[in-house]
Amino acid sequence: MKLYGAPQTRSVQAVWMLEECGARYERVLVDIRGGAQHTPEYHAINPMEKVPALVDGEARIAETGAICAYLADRFPEAELAPRIHDPERGRYLQWLFFSGSCVEPSFMEKVLGIDVNPSQAGWGNYAKVLDVLEEGVGDGPWLLGDRFTAADVVIGSGLYFGVRLFDLIAPRPAFDAYIDRCMARSAFVRAQELAEDWT
Amino acid sequence: MKLYGAPQTRSVQAVWMLEECGARYERVLVDIRGGAQHTPEYHAINPMEKVPALVDGEARIAETGAICAYLADRFPEAELAPRIHDPERGRYLQWLFFSGSCVEPSFMEKVLGIDVNPSQAGWGNYAKVLDVLEEGVGDGPWLLGDRFTAADVVIGSGLYFGVRLFDLIAPRPAFDAYIDRCMARSAFVRAQELAEDWT
Ligand SMILES: N[C@@H](CCC(=O)N[C@@H](CS)C(=O)NCC(=O)O)C(=O)O
Ligand SMILES: N[C@@H](CCC(=O)N[C@@H](CS)C(=O)NCC(=O)O)C(=O)O
Repeated sequence: MKLYGAPQTRSVQAVWMLEECGARYERVLVDIRGGAQHTPEYHAINPMEKVPALVDGEARIAETGAICAYLADRFPEAELAPRIHDPERGRYLQWLFFSGSCVEPSFMEKVLGIDVNPSQAGWGNYAKVLDVLEEGVGDGPWLLGDRFTAADVVIGSGLYFGVRLFDLIAPRPAFDAYIDRCMARSAFVRAQELAEDWT
Repeated sequence: MKLYGAPQTRSVQAVWMLEECGARYERVLVDIRGGAQHTPEYHAINPMEKVPALVDGEARIAETGAICAYLADRFPEAELAPRIHDPERGRYLQWLFFSGSCVEPSFMEKVLGIDVNPSQAGWGNYAKVLDVLEEGVGDGPWLLGDRFTAADVVIGSGLYFGVRLFDLIAPRPAFDAYIDRCMARSAFVRAQELAEDWT
């Protein structure tokens, strides 16, 4: 398995996920500041020419949520996803998709300073997304209760990014407690270091 | 199984998917123009208070991409998803996530008339998304070649919406041929009717 990535990008989410899985993988630098994502070779791995992307034998996967979904099913022994036919799989998938479809656009709304009509935008709006996140992580410890899943990797990464790294979200006690729980995981700690160091 | 939805919404995608699966399900109207999505009962089904949402026994799922991903695995006999450990599952998941994370934001960019820097936005930009879609559907007949999957339901719906229903995308031959192939499926045809008719 090879993870293509670069420092200070979403690649850290994929590294966190790989560490949670206990996967053996190689980190391969794509020098995105130097334009290395725009080669035919990398285009064949991810036609969007972005990082992260994962190559696993014949499989090629990009989009951070997709990488996490793929890995959770690929490593069942790590128990990072409810199995097919487990009723919890519904909410699990909902949270995975919620990250790219709702959390990320709501951050964009905030950064661009635009005002959207919550009954028109697919993500509602920034305020709505934060309320739904607060309700989701409030009971804890994890989105699905006692079990930590790949959904916590993507949602936890988004909240860590929005609250702790950038000032996109005003702290709320439920967010702080959840982010602290994420940051206490050894895979999270390892990922922060590994994702700065590419061969 | 109950699908909560409303006419003239993304619910039609979920209906198309259920029809592809050959699922038995009930369509339940959520009168979103009358505010019926904002009740405690519906909030418990989907905290975003939007349609569509699916209830399957104990399982509750919202986000259109998540509903399609869930159903594809729930009905393996319909062969709408490469199985876990099939290398094609990587690209399959990538396309499913691409819809909400890249196609939808690119439409929003177009509608709002904003200009984004493709190396900054997670979806690149509108032009990039269209090029990647064209490359994806060009060879055909489907995104994964000969096999039709749930990824075609979400990407096909997005292209149908953008090219045929609203004037968001200038026609390209590859888009037109792909949309025609989607529209020729009997499940697509049935879904267009059923999704206007809720109990
Ligand atoms: N939707 C993609 C977004 C990926 C993305 O935006 N990657 C950035 C780094 S965080 C990138 O590769 N930027 C370089 C470029 O676009 O040229 C995902 O979720 O993985
Ligand atoms: N991200 C959601 C978007 C769902 C959505 O925006 N639904 C609209 C109809 S297409 C809705 O329920 N609008 C009513 C409202 O927001 O009050 C998905 O992909 O399912």
